[in-house]
Amino acid sequence: MKTTILILLTFLSMGQIQAQTKEKSALVLIETQNEWMHEDGKLYKALVKDKEMMKNSIANIEKALDYARKNNIEVLHVGLRFEKGYPELANGKSGLRKAIQNAGTFPINEFGSQFYEPVKPIEGEFVVTGRVGASGFTGSNLDAYLRNNKIENLYLVGYATHVCVESTLRDAHDKGYNTFLISDGTSAFNRTQQDYVLNEIVHHFGKHLTTKEFVNE
Amino acid sequence: MKTTILILLTFLSMGQIQAQTKEKSALVLIETQNEWMHEDGKLYKALVKDKEMMKNSIANIEKALDYARKNNIEVLHVGLRFEKGYPELANGKSGLRKAIQNAGTFPINEFGSQFYEPVKPIEGEFVVTGRVGASGFTGSNLDAYLRNNKIENLYLVGYATHVCVESTLRDAHDKGYNTFLISDGTSAFNRTQQDYVLNEIVHHFGKHLTTKEFVNE
Amino acid sequence: MKTTILILLTFLSMGQIQAQTKEKSALVLIETQNEWMHEDGKLYKALVKDKEMMKNSIANIEKALDYARKNNIEVLHVGLRFEKGYPELANGKSGLRKAIQNAGTFPINEFGSQFYEPVKPIEGEFVVTGRVGASGFTGSNLDAYLRNNKIENLYLVGYATHVCVESTLRDAHDKGYNTFLISDGTSAFNRTQQDYVLNEIVHHFGKHLTTKEFVNE
Amino acid sequence: MKTTILILLTFLSMGQIQAQTKEKSALVLIETQNEWMHEDGKLYKALVKDKEMMKNSIANIEKALDYARKNNIEVLHVGLRFEKGYPELANGKSGLRKAIQNAGTFPINEFGSQFYEPVKPIEGEFVVTGRVGASGFTGSNLDAYLRNNKIENLYLVGYATHVCVESTLRDAHDKGYNTFLISDGTSAFNRTQQDYVLNEIVHHFGKHLTTKEFVNE
Repeated sequence: MKTTILILLTFLSMGQIQAQTKEKSALVLIETQNEWMHEDGKLYKALVKDKEMMKNSIANIEKALDYARKNNIEVLHVGLRFEKGYPELANGKSGLRKAIQNAGTFPINEFGSQFYEPVKPIEGEFVVTGRVGASGFTGSNLDAYLRNNKIENLYLVGYATHVCVESTLRDAHDKGYNTFLISDGTSAFNRTQQDYVLNEIVHHFGKHLTTKEFVNE
Repeated sequence: MKTTILILLTFLSMGQIQAQTKEKSALVLIETQNEWMHEDGKLYKALVKDKEMMKNSIANIEKALDYARKNNIEVLHVGLRFEKGYPELANGKSGLRKAIQNAGTFPINEFGSQFYEPVKPIEGEFVVTGRVGASGFTGSNLDAYLRNNKIENLYLVGYATHVCVESTLRDAHDKGYNTFLISDGTSAFNRTQQDYVLNEIVHHFGKHLTTKEFVNE
Repeated sequence: MKTTILILLTFLSMGQIQAQTKEKSALVLIETQNEWMHEDGKLYKALVKDKEMMKNSIANIEKALDYARKNNIEVLHVGLRFEKGYPELANGKSGLRKAIQNAGTFPINEFGSQFYEPVKPIEGEFVVTGRVGASGFTGSNLDAYLRNNKIENLYLVGYATHVCVESTLRDAHDKGYNTFLISDGTSAFNRTQQDYVLNEIVHHFGKHLTTKEFVNE
Repeated sequence: MKTTILILLTFLSMGQIQAQTKEKSALVLIETQNEWMHEDGKLYKALVKDKEMMKNSIANIEKALDYARKNNIEVLHVGLRFEKGYPELANGKSGLRKAIQNAGTFPINEFGSQFYEPVKPIEGEFVVTGRVGASGFTGSNLDAYLRNNKIENLYLVGYATHVCVESTLRDAHDKGYNTFLISDGTSAFNRTQQDYVLNEIVHHFGKHLTTKEFVNE
């Protein structure tokens, strides 16, 4: 009997150790908004060339989100939204700071910046605010939230793979997070870009895995 | 006639030079929310001991705001607001990260976090988002906005002088801004704290001036 | 015998749990350089009015440093040093960005910026680089180092209490650290300033304790 | 005579206006250190597959540097260097935070981290310190220096195009700078990566131009 107790206690304490030392993880949804995901979204129409890759990524984000919600993994929604006239991007002479204004994307309180219905935030999930740049950290409270909540592992999904998702991945790695790209929960404009990111970029700033691997971990 | 033209052109070009080299300024309102300014605000009731200094500062913020609006000086509103349960401040063991939760101040979409009516934002004024710390820059898009809009001079008003206003002042100076505290457009809990900031602190991180000086500059 | 093993194992695993969950701490020395601490330092001569408080703080920093080194607490040295001509502080119109240049303090590779001999870094202690502002975090790799090393508790000593130490304290709290000011291991210019920081400021941004309490914790 | 004066004054003032409104520029050299550029450098040997592209980029950096020095454009040197044991990168589990340690690259005060002789800093050029990440801004005083010196246009050269140069480009754009990649003053590991960055990435975060265009601007 003593042996039984011994084993039991040992197992219990090992479990406790594991529980307490396991780093906290978050599933981070980047720009899962109508602009990219909805068929009437401006970027869906203008930039997404491989519609199948997009559709597939949406199905996978839904799976990953479902898994995270059921397994007590934090879910963070990191959208973009700009005030009328894009004052946050004033004097943008090139790149996204100019292109976003020209395209009129992500206007606050309008269709384009609304979260895509099937993966929108539910009660208790944190919606990051303040963001104004390609990296989800730029101008936002993402870093503050993650630090205060002691989250160290970030699993990234969203759009577009080689633009804002990659900027967030690079920035997150530089900030000290363990970063993971859920490869089929993201989409670039075309397959060449998508493959390039997975083959040439991710290993410098983290790791990538499939949705299937994520939900089986 | 030529002389006239000469003088005219010279003046014109001088004016142009001045216009183009004058650094852009902003009036920055820190926590001008009910929690501090309204008689039913939690902090007004619990922390503001010198009600006269508070009332006086409110009158001065109104004057400074009116002047800024009429003279094309940008106005920025830097409030605090927290999600239910204060997830942004998780694991706060001391200081504001604990005290704000304990006091239940600045709950999002509730009375305490609403801007104080007489000085609330109007169309076209930027409302900073993301903020989670004592400094108006922490977690927020304040810095991004100021940089993109090429604003270099910050005139600070709001609450409380020795806590969040001072943290913002210190942070702004470290970030390279020219910082000015509008001394009678701010209020500490009591006069001793207010005087201390003005006499012992501000000159390390900028300058202070009165509302009267601000509107006459 | 089985019981003995049982108890042994249980204790062992409890110890392990504690060891693994205890947050890491660092003793952070702010500007412990000749400029403040040496009798020939410019700031020692010009600003430190209460020489006894300074001398006392030096003795306490030595004690705290000795304790940290013997108890495996990380020691970080956060100095200031500027290139010839102070290019890092270009266009400083007021506050420290102007005053440091005017006073000619902390010139790189010269006496003023050298660490004060009795508390200088030893092999294996990290010397923060890049710093250019009042907060030890401004322009420096302090935050990156702390994050990557998973240090959460910061014990601050150094100079001056109400200027750079306080800026670092405020910034550290906003960044999510648990901050502690070792009250008698710091010195302001005079006792009034020192008391003010301890009585009116620290509790908003952390806690303070004496050197005696630190070495007995 | 009056007309002459008139014309003179007009020209003078126009010149003044132009001089005062032209944004300041800097040539930013990223990791122009032996590790990448010298034939005995670890990364030169292990990662640079297209030696011709590397050699060509070195010649172009020399040209760009010469032009900048003669035309009063600021030159900034943004290297990497790590303390013994890589304490700045502690707990790196993947990506550069792990790879740099494993490869033993950029050790402080050793051959690999020394600036490549032909393009090393000269008196008066700022050498950025503190840096610990892929972006030249991570942990460093690069941003503080640029802001205080009111530099708005960044011309980037260095290594590797798709890793640290691209991270710096992305980060600089997010921070509000006007960014320019001098395309033949950089090198990736191979031509495919180099072309990809120029064709698919740069326009989201700035512009690219050749060394020839840079020196003729």
